[in-house]
Amino acid sequence: MSFKAIHAFAVLPLALTFVLGTQARAAAQEPIQPLEAPKITNPAKVELGKQLFFDPRLSRSGFISCNSCHNLSMGGSDGLKVSIGDRWQKGAIRAPTVLNSSLNLAQFWNGRAKDLESQATGPLLNPIEMNTTSEAAELMVNSLPGYREEFKKVYGTDKASLQQIGDAIAAFETTLITPNSRFDKWLKGDKTAITDYELAGYELFKSVGCVACHNGPGVGGNSFQKFGLVNAYKSPNPSQGRADVTHDDSDRMMFKVPLLRNVALIPPYFHDGSANTLTQAVETMGWLQLGKKFTADQNAQIVAFLKTLTGDQPTFPLPQLPPSNDETPRPDPFAPVAQK
Amino acid sequence: MSFKAIHAFAVLPLALTFVLGTQARAAAQEPIQPLEAPKITNPAKVELGKQLFFDPRLSRSGFISCNSCHNLSMGGSDGLKVSIGDRWQKGAIRAPTVLNSSLNLAQFWNGRAKDLESQATGPLLNPIEMNTTSEAAELMVNSLPGYREEFKKVYGTDKASLQQIGDAIAAFETTLITPNSRFDKWLKGDKTAITDYELAGYELFKSVGCVACHNGPGVGGNSFQKFGLVNAYKSPNPSQGRADVTHDDSDRMMFKVPLLRNVALIPPYFHDGSANTLTQAVETMGWLQLGKKFTADQNAQIVAFLKTLTGDQPTFPLPQLPPSNDETPRPDPFAPVAQK
Repeated sequence: MSFKAIHAFAVLPLALTFVLGTQARAAAQEPIQPLEAPKITNPAKVELGKQLFFDPRLSRSGFISCNSCHNLSMGGSDGLKVSIGDRWQKGAIRAPTVLNSSLNLAQFWNGRAKDLESQATGPLLNPIEMNTTSEAAELMVNSLPGYREEFKKVYGTDKASLQQIGDAIAAFETTLITPNSRFDKWLKGDKTAITDYELAGYELFKSVGCVACHNGPGVGGNSFQKFGLVNAYKSPNPSQGRADVTHDDSDRMMFKVPLLRNVALIPPYFHDGSANTLTQAVETMGWLQLGKKFTADQNAQIVAFLKTLTGDQPTFPLPQLPPSNDETPRPDPFAPVAQK
Repeated sequence: MSFKAIHAFAVLPLALTFVLGTQARAAAQEPIQPLEAPKITNPAKVELGKQLFFDPRLSRSGFISCNSCHNLSMGGSDGLKVSIGDRWQKGAIRAPTVLNSSLNLAQFWNGRAKDLESQATGPLLNPIEMNTTSEAAELMVNSLPGYREEFKKVYGTDKASLQQIGDAIAAFETTLITPNSRFDKWLKGDKTAITDYELAGYELFKSVGCVACHNGPGVGGNSFQKFGLVNAYKSPNPSQGRADVTHDDSDRMMFKVPLLRNVALIPPYFHDGSANTLTQAVETMGWLQLGKKFTADQNAQIVAFLKTLTGDQPTFPLPQLPPSNDETPRPDPFAPVAQK
């Protein structure tokens, strides 16, 4: 076949490939990628995990559920500087959002849990959070025919374990992805999805260097970085980040970079909740991490961009929990608590 | 027209009328009437009230919402003897279910609020419950464009008031009716909807006299009665019922008769939460109110009947709340609280 013949047949497909390819390449070249709706492979496990996530009987008091501090009506967090735990104890750190948390390279601000499965039971057992024991959690769950049936179906077991409780909660949490933000629509080619002002904010976000840490589909969550890289951060909060896990001095103030997805929904900001507004957070980050003082307009542009990252919030019917029966232990939130 | 002619034309409709009439009369003659699904006349107000019901920012701490103690995933109550309030304060009394609460002749165990509208703001302002002020609640709500738009639409106002907040919450609560219990199906003519054993329990419930107070569509809620009518009730709980409102000695221990709808979902029982199980509750009520000691089988029959009163639970998507913005006050749950 002559060159001309090839050319004659190939020119249209080649042109199409070029147009589509440019668009795909444009999205691929951005340091932030759009979120995709989660594929649910085990709906029974997700449904079970959803009930457990909303069940306050998993706490010592019978009052605090995962949803108390990771409130899915409020962007997956609680709007507090630090959370309230068993007997109104003051939490150590700002509750991170559970939304898109499966995108994190590790869980907790200091990354001490490698994945959601190992994270999920942490707050249950934490004496200043839900403060239960594995025995108490298992006793509660196994007292309820409703839960027993579901655990049987999902795990083939007659007796649920704390590990399975955590596994089911993690399976639910993995579905809490928030696609279709305006910025994602823009990434996918709808150039009208964000305004010029918001786009200018994104360009600034990239050019000044925010994107060096806040990148990927989660706009963060994929590295540990020093908080106070250029200028030191002073906080009354004693958390030292990774160093609290590794006990290595070089890990002081190394925190997991938080996801910026849905960030407009969840003030206050930082691990100590010290920034009340996005404006304050952007100002502080510019100075501490980049040594930059943004103008008011630059700051506002970046904030405008950050507000385009709010995606579809999880939507499902309010779960109905298996009712307590005669065998279900009755919580006593006012009973004295032994020190552990 | 001759009598015969009338007869010839009328016999079939008359026969039908007779059959249907018997069934309707049968239901009408029962002291308990079936619940009907609520008619929603102002969906915008109900939707607003639903969001407010789930909004913990209506509390001083930012942590406690109406749904915390009237948990719609758990039969509209919290499963605790007495509830947990601001700074983990111990509540005075068992949280009654919000389900079907519009059927009550008055609200609270001692009837101190004449309706849901006047009840709804009570816990918001109560120093041992949500502990907010009308100023703080209004400031929060009016800071949010999302809420402002809804209040504008529903009340034609640019500035929401505490009274309107309560009104909207009450409108939502009025929709929390639970029809289609197995007992309702039986009342409506489906004689297979409950078992012979459950029916025997109902017959006993009527013949021994429980139904004297627990009647009507709510199976209670329509009178005040003395708790400890035949034999005195002793409780560490200081509540004196109506007397706490009227300061009239003759009202001592006069409590609003609780609704028995969905009672199986909400142990523990009584205003002091002292009965851990339905079995205990039936035993105590038989002795205190009727001077009767039920046999184990009689007790079990009544309990079996009570379990047929669980109806369709409210089902709606988990509400999404308007996100806090720069103007929204940030709660500080650990700040010292001035005595009121």
